[in-house]
Amino acid sequence: MEHSDLDTTVIDARLAAAKQASYRLAQATTAEKDIALERIADLLRERSGDIIAANRLDLEAGREAGLEAGLLDRLTLDDRRVGALAVAVLEVIALTDPVGETVSGRSLPNGVRIDQVRVPLGVVGAIYEARPNVTVDIAVLALKSGNAVVLRGGTAAEQTNRVLVDVLRDALDAVGLPADAVQTVDDFGRAGARHLMQARDYVDVLIPRGSAGLIRAVVDEAKVPVIETGAGVVHMYLDASAREDWAVELVHNAKVQRPSVCNALETLLVHRDAAERLLPAVLDRLEASGVTVHADERVRALRPEVEPVTDEDWATEHMSLDLSVGMVDSMDDALEHIRRFSTKHTESIVTNDLANAERFLNEVDAAAVMVNASTRFTDGAEFGFGAEVGISTQKLHARGPMGLPELTSTKWLVRGAGHVRA
Amino acid sequence: MEHSDLDTTVIDARLAAAKQASYRLAQATTAEKDIALERIADLLRERSGDIIAANRLDLEAGREAGLEAGLLDRLTLDDRRVGALAVAVLEVIALTDPVGETVSGRSLPNGVRIDQVRVPLGVVGAIYEARPNVTVDIAVLALKSGNAVVLRGGTAAEQTNRVLVDVLRDALDAVGLPADAVQTVDDFGRAGARHLMQARDYVDVLIPRGSAGLIRAVVDEAKVPVIETGAGVVHMYLDASAREDWAVELVHNAKVQRPSVCNALETLLVHRDAAERLLPAVLDRLEASGVTVHADERVRALRPEVEPVTDEDWATEHMSLDLSVGMVDSMDDALEHIRRFSTKHTESIVTNDLANAERFLNEVDAAAVMVNASTRFTDGAEFGFGAEVGISTQKLHARGPMGLPELTSTKWLVRGAGHVRA
Repeated sequence: MEHSDLDTTVIDARLAAAKQASYRLAQATTAEKDIALERIADLLRERSGDIIAANRLDLEAGREAGLEAGLLDRLTLDDRRVGALAVAVLEVIALTDPVGETVSGRSLPNGVRIDQVRVPLGVVGAIYEARPNVTVDIAVLALKSGNAVVLRGGTAAEQTNRVLVDVLRDALDAVGLPADAVQTVDDFGRAGARHLMQARDYVDVLIPRGSAGLIRAVVDEAKVPVIETGAGVVHMYLDASAREDWAVELVHNAKVQRPSVCNALETLLVHRDAAERLLPAVLDRLEASGVTVHADERVRALRPEVEPVTDEDWATEHMSLDLSVGMVDSMDDALEHIRRFSTKHTESIVTNDLANAERFLNEVDAAAVMVNASTRFTDGAEFGFGAEVGISTQKLHARGPMGLPELTSTKWLVRGAGHVRA
Repeated sequence: MEHSDLDTTVIDARLAAAKQASYRLAQATTAEKDIALERIADLLRERSGDIIAANRLDLEAGREAGLEAGLLDRLTLDDRRVGALAVAVLEVIALTDPVGETVSGRSLPNGVRIDQVRVPLGVVGAIYEARPNVTVDIAVLALKSGNAVVLRGGTAAEQTNRVLVDVLRDALDAVGLPADAVQTVDDFGRAGARHLMQARDYVDVLIPRGSAGLIRAVVDEAKVPVIETGAGVVHMYLDASAREDWAVELVHNAKVQRPSVCNALETLLVHRDAAERLLPAVLDRLEASGVTVHADERVRALRPEVEPVTDEDWATEHMSLDLSVGMVDSMDDALEHIRRFSTKHTESIVTNDLANAERFLNEVDAAAVMVNASTRFTDGAEFGFGAEVGISTQKLHARGPMGLPELTSTKWLVRGAGHVRA
């Protein structure tokens, strides 16, 4: 749906309301915010019928528009999923509120006291695809960390999101916090999303969640600072010294355990000296799980029945049971390949050589660099952060799995007693 | 000078060389980097004659172009200033190298070990005005933190910067580090600056240093993430309970001690109940130091001889001995004024009321919020960081005075023993 006649007055009024509400949210106590989250969970359950009815409209429209099965599945909410959403909200209550944490502090030689404390970012803009659970998920994380949030979900989920936004706003209102801390620009379509991305006066950070295409579009169009999340062309390198049992299980787990997520394996590189020893068992185990292998010529010399790999494959996040496999002459070649194709998400080496392990850890430039571990571990829950805002693949502000502290900034509190600078 | 016929092949080759060099710099030991800094300081002194000769050409061109006196002064290098530059380089040797610092770490329940360690950002793009000392300053800070740097200084300093870039590159080369870790795009003029700002494939962060106009231009044009530094419309609020002696000295120090910098005071707000008690002494002391007061009607009722303040004054960073002064009816009004005009750099309250002090610290949204202290304390050296990269006025990544750690990112090192995700 295109909304070309964008009324910037209306949209700016909403953004300004979010900004205004953010001042109150920033001062809210942890207890106040937790009560709001409880109320959100309650209302989700109470209005489950409304939510599912609205979702049915989105699903019908999606089917008519020919949305593919995977997207329809992500779009779908039923009683069980709404219940799971409410449980996820309650889990955020258990997380430590980062606001007010003293990050560092000292007394200066002249007696002035300085303390760096965590404060909310202010207004978080979330841009994502037609997954209604993200609406609740990102709003709740933003609220717990004292931020207002402006949501822009995929148009295919517009009806569902409208009901969910009402739930969020009504819950805030019911507990005495400003409903305006949750806003949506869904009803302004793409023009609204573009406006949100440019609204530096109102929005402090944009968090795009979704496909590589979505994230690239946001980075290209945004004037508001962006935290890039997501896309992972993830590599595993089997060093000459790799243990066979580990290689087999690590590759299999990284590729097969959940192929549709960003920390799943996309490319396997194997040292030529280990190829004959390792590849048969590694590929047998993969193929037994239905993995389609796309391999270079030297790997195909060992296993002629697999598909040839293309240049495009090396650069692609398949998010499916497809795996690109290549042979390298040296660790240098492996590092070079990774440097060229990595999206700097997660890279892993399987090795028993200490020097190679340390070199890999030092030289590979990615949010997570691993030795003898499945790439599937790059995850907020696995890292012990509780809920996860996303996995940052950029270098500024946050890198890797982001928890609540990554939705905060800091400020310096300076306390003197009439101190002047000499 | 306009360079409309931008050869992107040449400029991209330089950016690619910087990227390549950044891999080596990221692996350089602290000792290697410190030796390079020593060599830079030596070469600055050795080539002082060349530097000053080139500077003379820039100064002549600047005078012909009618550059104003302040700009010419900032552009000028003489023997003493080159000596001071060399000393400043040596001082960076004493700073702790942030690279490799473990920021956090733990063992996960399954035994996987995760450590978050500091790594260089990669390639830092610096965009600044015709102040040749910044060329050395920012390059040395980038190098010490393991980064390559691409420089774009003001065109008026082009000759001087060329010699300084040679010094930096030759010093790196002399100690076995890649000269390509220091690049300039000065010879491509504005088109080169624009290209640098868009070069996401090569440049990890842009740091603009200079006027509000320069910073705004970079934020508007950049695709590379920007750390905004600088502009400060800085307020001090005299609460009803403020001590007179502190009020007099704090306002004077904040305004007069160095008016041309971003943490200098621009606006004084005074509570109506304290105006008659405080303003005479405060304004006498300011005027004795040559400050021009621009005041609202209620302040002028107390002191009719001062200039009237304009709406534009409230929003202006004068960087001169001009001060806007206004009276407010309440702390709410003061907070509202600050919220409206603050650039979120530094804000200070003078008070003896504990509740008001805490409220000000909590509610004011700025990089540094102060009680009974001069705003001039917002400074890397004062905060104990040694050298300062700039003062960030944004909320992402870094806020307030930035030291070497703010020129780094982190990565997660994950060490397992064949661990797979269940």
